[in-house]
Amino acid sequence: MGVVVPLDDRQKSEPSVEPLVALVAADMERVNRLILSKAGSDVAMIPEVANHLISSGGKRLRPMLTLAAAQMCGYEGEGHIRLATAVEFMHTATLLHDDVVDESDMRRGKLAARKLWGNQASVLVGDFLLGQAFRMMVEVGSMQALGVLSDAAAIIAEGEVMQLAAAKNMATTEDEYLAVIRAKTAALFSAAAEVGPIVAGRPREDEAAFRSYGGNLGIAFQLIDDALDYGGSSAKLGKNVGDDFREGKITLPVVLAYRRGSDEERAFWTRCLQGGEIHDGDLARAIELLKKHEALEDTVERARHYGKMAKDALAPMKDSAHKRALIEVVDFCVARAH
Amino acid sequence: MGVVVPLDDRQKSEPSVEPLVALVAADMERVNRLILSKAGSDVAMIPEVANHLISSGGKRLRPMLTLAAAQMCGYEGEGHIRLATAVEFMHTATLLHDDVVDESDMRRGKLAARKLWGNQASVLVGDFLLGQAFRMMVEVGSMQALGVLSDAAAIIAEGEVMQLAAAKNMATTEDEYLAVIRAKTAALFSAAAEVGPIVAGRPREDEAAFRSYGGNLGIAFQLIDDALDYGGSSAKLGKNVGDDFREGKITLPVVLAYRRGSDEERAFWTRCLQGGEIHDGDLARAIELLKKHEALEDTVERARHYGKMAKDALAPMKDSAHKRALIEVVDFCVARAH
Repeated sequence: MGVVVPLDDRQKSEPSVEPLVALVAADMERVNRLILSKAGSDVAMIPEVANHLISSGGKRLRPMLTLAAAQMCGYEGEGHIRLATAVEFMHTATLLHDDVVDESDMRRGKLAARKLWGNQASVLVGDFLLGQAFRMMVEVGSMQALGVLSDAAAIIAEGEVMQLAAAKNMATTEDEYLAVIRAKTAALFSAAAEVGPIVAGRPREDEAAFRSYGGNLGIAFQLIDDALDYGGSSAKLGKNVGDDFREGKITLPVVLAYRRGSDEERAFWTRCLQGGEIHDGDLARAIELLKKHEALEDTVERARHYGKMAKDALAPMKDSAHKRALIEVVDFCVARAH
Repeated sequence: MGVVVPLDDRQKSEPSVEPLVALVAADMERVNRLILSKAGSDVAMIPEVANHLISSGGKRLRPMLTLAAAQMCGYEGEGHIRLATAVEFMHTATLLHDDVVDESDMRRGKLAARKLWGNQASVLVGDFLLGQAFRMMVEVGSMQALGVLSDAAAIIAEGEVMQLAAAKNMATTEDEYLAVIRAKTAALFSAAAEVGPIVAGRPREDEAAFRSYGGNLGIAFQLIDDALDYGGSSAKLGKNVGDDFREGKITLPVVLAYRRGSDEERAFWTRCLQGGEIHDGDLARAIELLKKHEALEDTVERARHYGKMAKDALAPMKDSAHKRALIEVVDFCVARAH
């Protein structure tokens, strides 16, 4: 059964992000202008570093959630533009700091900012963007939205530290891993969606619906990312296949393969990820083990589960183009894995 | 003429921070408890890293400013405790990120956190503390205080990037250097003092007085720090003499000595600081040149100028133990250089 999207009347075979993009296009243009303006500074290095990452064009999924949620809730003010920009800045700051922490060389198919300007600039420009994000939130003047987004900022950092600690522990359980990605990824998706009904002054149950939608979409999104890291192509991903493997990150596919593996297989994972001792052919072996234990398929299956929760969270809301677009995005995120 | 401080009736020969410490002692105890509680996390690494730095006991001058300003303005609520804690967390986060950026080995006489837990943890725990700081500010519920502190957060980061760019430029002028320390140091002092009258609901001219007091005190404080880096002893400072020199930081003493020096001397500074080529005896030569051109004395003299501005900013306020203590702190900061 295809979802019929008003702006595109041919029957869709594949779920797409396009209906959402179309609905928020006008607002997104204002967000893009605000991004450029607020990443500006007399200190030349700041716009250079910020624009390198910003112009490399992520999907801007998080600010789109804020814009779509606010529109869907009938918001007619201006605050959602600033909030969406703040959300994207929080995300960009996290990416800059992540690259330093992970010692990544690539980000979105370009050299990571830290390779071009150094770790120092990445740390500090990240701090600057975070500061600008809070300034914009304050300008909007909603104490409740500020609370939701500042909670998210603290939770994201906590999740990153959690991941740092878990990175070298093969005994990480699926639950422990979920706790990490709830914090480091889902918290911002959740906050991005929730501030929509908040600025629109909608009742508490609508806030809860969008919070749950965003959070579960975030988990699904991250799990698919984890699967793609072992299965996508470098060009498609904008990062190298096997990055997580080389960085010793314990993601769900690995958690599953490790727990389902033989003693000899577990020794292999421990040597590579915990010990950091990786030889030629080890990535291929890892992918082979993931396939053998159906770890990638099951990771996608888990993602589908959270995707369903996201869709059910919005189920009570009355039908609209926005609702259909937000639901299609869930399917789009999960379908990326194929 | 000695300043007579009510809590200590002997005639003072040297200005002291003690009167201020005594006035805010009860509130500071509550701040210390809140610091420990808000630096807590189930993720064990967070309190470990945070407490390493927090327990190494800086002077907590910034939160004391917030507490004293709020008390002096007759504030009777609870918000100043959270705001003071947020200010200290913003400062601690900056220190954690600075150590990574500066590649420092020591901080307050202990190994820097990054040497014990790695750059990664320092970046992320800094982010966590910043997130917690914003959470606490939001809890206080003053949009105006939030605005002042989030402005400071963005300005601090901008100042750090400015310094990063200026670090390798011997042609930095005194004005350019002042712009750096106004942003990276004075902005937080200024905000810390200003939120006192803000939570107390005092008129705009009182906010401006405390903002000016804090900002000028911050500049004086930083200039004295710069002088001490070439003149103090390692034990007294809790950091190594010559750290700034080894890190190629262009501070005011260097700006003055460079501009007053001969071509040969300028070549020396350029080789050491811009070129990063430092040999045995170079630090001693640097200190000799600073003395020759009276660069340290004049840096202290400049600090005294900003100290006077800080004191005059508070001059219109009516006399009180708090006012006297805040004024004595200015003299104390400047006197540290001797």
